[in-house]
Amino acid sequence: MLLREMSRIECDDLLSRLGYGRLACARDKQPYIVPIYFVFEPGCLYGFSTMGQKIEWMRLNSLVCVEADEVRSHHEWSSVVVQGRYEEFTDNPEYSKQRQHAQSLLEQKRLLWWQTAFAAAQTRGRFDRDITIFYCIHIDEISGRRVSSDPVEHR
Amino acid sequence: MLLREMSRIECDDLLSRLGYGRLACARDKQPYIVPIYFVFEPGCLYGFSTMGQKIEWMRLNSLVCVEADEVRSHHEWSSVVVQGRYEEFTDNPEYSKQRQHAQSLLEQKRLLWWQTAFAAAQTRGRFDRDITIFYCIHIDEISGRRVSSDPVEHR
Repeated sequence: MLLREMSRIECDDLLSRLGYGRLACARDKQPYIVPIYFVFEPGCLYGFSTMGQKIEWMRLNSLVCVEADEVRSHHEWSSVVVQGRYEEFTDNPEYSKQRQHAQSLLEQKRLLWWQTAFAAAQTRGRFDRDITIFYCIHIDEISGRRVSSDPVEHR
Repeated sequence: MLLREMSRIECDDLLSRLGYGRLACARDKQPYIVPIYFVFEPGCLYGFSTMGQKIEWMRLNSLVCVEADEVRSHHEWSSVVVQGRYEEFTDNPEYSKQRQHAQSLLEQKRLLWWQTAFAAAQTRGRFDRDITIFYCIHIDEISGRRVSSDPVEHR
């Protein structure tokens, strides 16, 4: 088994292909993880959400971490970790271009996701299609690891 | 698409079956996520690691979050989130029983994991088979969500 650090290009490529991962935010000293869908563009991850705990927490502390991985087997997987900052595209003129851009990217690529976000909001009794929060995670640091089978083991 | 909260029994069952997830810890206000293997017993998750960032951070702040999920498709997935506290089974007589118990559970179930942990340590130039850290995440809170296809949509 060989484990190696991934290059920046490999990390970007994985984020671009996957579009699905886990986001951690923190309040006081308590971290919290939720699965998220995202669209990658160089330097940032676009996402959307209805109101909930992660948005409340990220408004108070914008420092977040996103992890995305592709696990084929115990001997073959890749994992990318992003450290970044949350920026909310609030529904006002200042952010209208960013909201449109994020919405367009997200709708193009991941139409199914909306159903999940709204089903979640409905379950919490907060269903309102008009209150969709668009955001961006600005990527400050990125690192990745890839495990592959060791060719020596197969000789 | 139907989304519903999972019962405690369903959450425990998923953690027991999966044995793989992501752990988030936090230093100051910065969260950090890493993939982990674990063995579930009611009330806690056992894990092991070589020395690295997550252990350094959890020693400073024991509050952690673990997420594990099973994604069959966009329409069918389950995700469990645990809020808990890190306890390290340090290599001294006080913890010898807990270390043995954790080691025995982990070795029985997940022999392959060791290779990954040691490959990671080797990559960081910190390879030392004698320095294995066993730990437990005490489960304080647990919640889960399951999405399944909506039977109404299929009529």
